[in-house]
Amino acid sequence: MTQPPITADWIAADWGTSHLRVWAMADGADIAQAQSDQGMNRLSPGGFEAALLELIEPWLGAGTTPVVACGMVGARQGWVEAPYTAVPCTPLPVTPVRAQAADQRLAVWVVPGLKQQSPPDVMRGEETQIAGFLALNPNFDGVLCLPGTHTKWAQVSAGEVVSFQSFMTGELFASLAENSVLRHTVAPCGWDEGTFADALDDALSRPDRLAARLFTLRADALLNDTSGTQGRARLSGLLIGAELAAAKPYWLGQQVGVIGASAVAAPYVTALTRQGNTPVQADAAAMTRAGLIAAHRNIDT
Amino acid sequence: MTQPPITADWIAADWGTSHLRVWAMADGADIAQAQSDQGMNRLSPGGFEAALLELIEPWLGAGTTPVVACGMVGARQGWVEAPYTAVPCTPLPVTPVRAQAADQRLAVWVVPGLKQQSPPDVMRGEETQIAGFLALNPNFDGVLCLPGTHTKWAQVSAGEVVSFQSFMTGELFASLAENSVLRHTVAPCGWDEGTFADALDDALSRPDRLAARLFTLRADALLNDTSGTQGRARLSGLLIGAELAAAKPYWLGQQVGVIGASAVAAPYVTALTRQGNTPVQADAAAMTRAGLIAAHRNIDT
Repeated sequence: MTQPPITADWIAADWGTSHLRVWAMADGADIAQAQSDQGMNRLSPGGFEAALLELIEPWLGAGTTPVVACGMVGARQGWVEAPYTAVPCTPLPVTPVRAQAADQRLAVWVVPGLKQQSPPDVMRGEETQIAGFLALNPNFDGVLCLPGTHTKWAQVSAGEVVSFQSFMTGELFASLAENSVLRHTVAPCGWDEGTFADALDDALSRPDRLAARLFTLRADALLNDTSGTQGRARLSGLLIGAELAAAKPYWLGQQVGVIGASAVAAPYVTALTRQGNTPVQADAAAMTRAGLIAAHRNIDT
Repeated sequence: MTQPPITADWIAADWGTSHLRVWAMADGADIAQAQSDQGMNRLSPGGFEAALLELIEPWLGAGTTPVVACGMVGARQGWVEAPYTAVPCTPLPVTPVRAQAADQRLAVWVVPGLKQQSPPDVMRGEETQIAGFLALNPNFDGVLCLPGTHTKWAQVSAGEVVSFQSFMTGELFASLAENSVLRHTVAPCGWDEGTFADALDDALSRPDRLAARLFTLRADALLNDTSGTQGRARLSGLLIGAELAAAKPYWLGQQVGVIGASAVAAPYVTALTRQGNTPVQADAAAMTRAGLIAAHRNIDT
C-alpha cells in the first residue's frame, strides 16, 4: 500500500546553520514534516534549491507552491541575502525576500533578520520564533530568552522588539567541553542538579571571576576525582551564570518567556527560577512554525 | 665536511603537550639544541623513549647520559607519573622521578609538578621556569605571570611558591578565533594596539559583562565592516582584560615578572603597564633551561 499523496498549499522552512526542517502546510495546519542536515554551512549558493527539493518534491502540486524560509538561508552566504531590519520594529516588519529558483514549481521567500546598531547585534531565525510567540500571545510584554548556540535575549513591548543581545554561551560550552583540556573532565551527557546550582550561584555572585574558575574544573578532577557528570553540570552552571549576570538588565523584574527545545531551555528555566523569576516556556519548533505562518501572510501569492 | 661530534654531559628536555625541545649540556652550558612536535598528546606511554632518542642519539657518549625533563611528560598519560607536590614549597622541592628506559645509555629523570588543594590547581613545567627565574633572581619577592595555553599566576616569596592560579585564556582565544563563529571576524595574525587597549579597559572596568561582549565582535564586523585585525586585537583585549580582572589579587601593587615567548608575553606586559604596573620580562626557554640546570643538581648521578 502506498501512502496517499500529500499536496501542500505552501511550505514552511526553518533553515539554519546546520539543519533544514520543512513542514507541508494545508488549510492552515502542518500535515507533514521532513528534515535533513543540509544547513547553510554545508551548502554553496547553488546548492540550496536541490537541498530543498530533496525534501519537499513529494509535496509539490502542478502549479506554483510558495515556500517561506527563515534562518541563515538569508545570510550573505545563504541562498539570497535578506537584509536586516533595525530594531525597534515588529519581528516581521517587511515582506520576505524572493530567492531565485530554476524549478518553476517553486516560489521561495526568505524572512529577513533583525539588527541593532548599538551595541551591535544581529539575529536570523529568532525573529520568526518571536513572531510566532507574539502570534500566540499577542499581549505579551516582557523579555524573550532564546537559548541556543548563540542565545538571544529580546525585550518585547507593544508587539515590537525593542532591543536584544546575543551570548555565545552554547558555542562556548561545546567548544570547552569538546575541544579544550576540559574534555577530559566534562562528560558528554548526564547532569548533577546540585553542582549546577552551586556553580550558577558562584558565577552570579562573582561573575568577574569566571576566567579564574574554568581551569579549576580540570584541577578539581585531577586532585579530587570529581566526576564527568559533575564537570558537565558545573561548566554549564558557570557559563549560564555568567550569561545571567551580564543579561541581568534584561530579566530582572521582568516577565520572561524561554523559547527552546526542552533540553536546551531547562537549565535556563532552572537558573531564572532560582533567581526568583517565574519564566513561561514555549517550544522552539512550534514557535518557528507559527512565525512562518505569520510571515506567509505577508507575501503576495 | 662533517660537523665535529657533540657529546653531552647531560641533556635538558622541555616536554610539553605539543612539543619536545632538548639541549645538550656540557660544562654548565648548552652546546646544542633540537626540537620536534612529539609532545605528550601524540605519544602513547611506550613511545616516549623513541621520540627522545630520535633527537638526542647523536649526543650520547659510551656511558650513561642523564636526561632531566619537565612538563607533561610527567603527567598520568606521560612517560612516568611524577606526583605533584603541594604548595607552599620551593618550585623544585623533591628529587625528580626516574623513568624506565630500555636503552642502557639513558638515565631519564622527570621533574614533578606542583598542586594547590584550594582552590584546586595544578602546574607541570611552569615550576621549572619559576625555579630558573629564581636561580637567576634569588631575592625576587612578588608574582610571576607565565602566559600560555593555560596562563599561570604564581605568588613567590622567600624562594617558595605560596599560591598560584591558572587561566584558560590562551586556549579560549585559540578556540574562539579558530573554531567559533568569530573565525570569520578574527584574523590569524596582525594587531591593532588602540583596539586592544580599548577592549582591555572595557573588560577590566566591567568584567561581569564579558559574556555579553563576545558576539558583539561578529555583529560589529557584519554591520560596521570592522577588520579581522581589529577583531583579533579586540578578542585578545577582552580575554586578557577578563583574566587581569580575576587575577587582580595577584598583581595589584605587586612586583610582577612575566615569563614567556615575546609574542605571547607582549600583550600581558602592555596590559599590566596600562594598569600602572611595571613588570619585568624573562624569556620562557631561557628560564626553562636554567630551571632544568637547577633540577639536574638535585639528582644523584
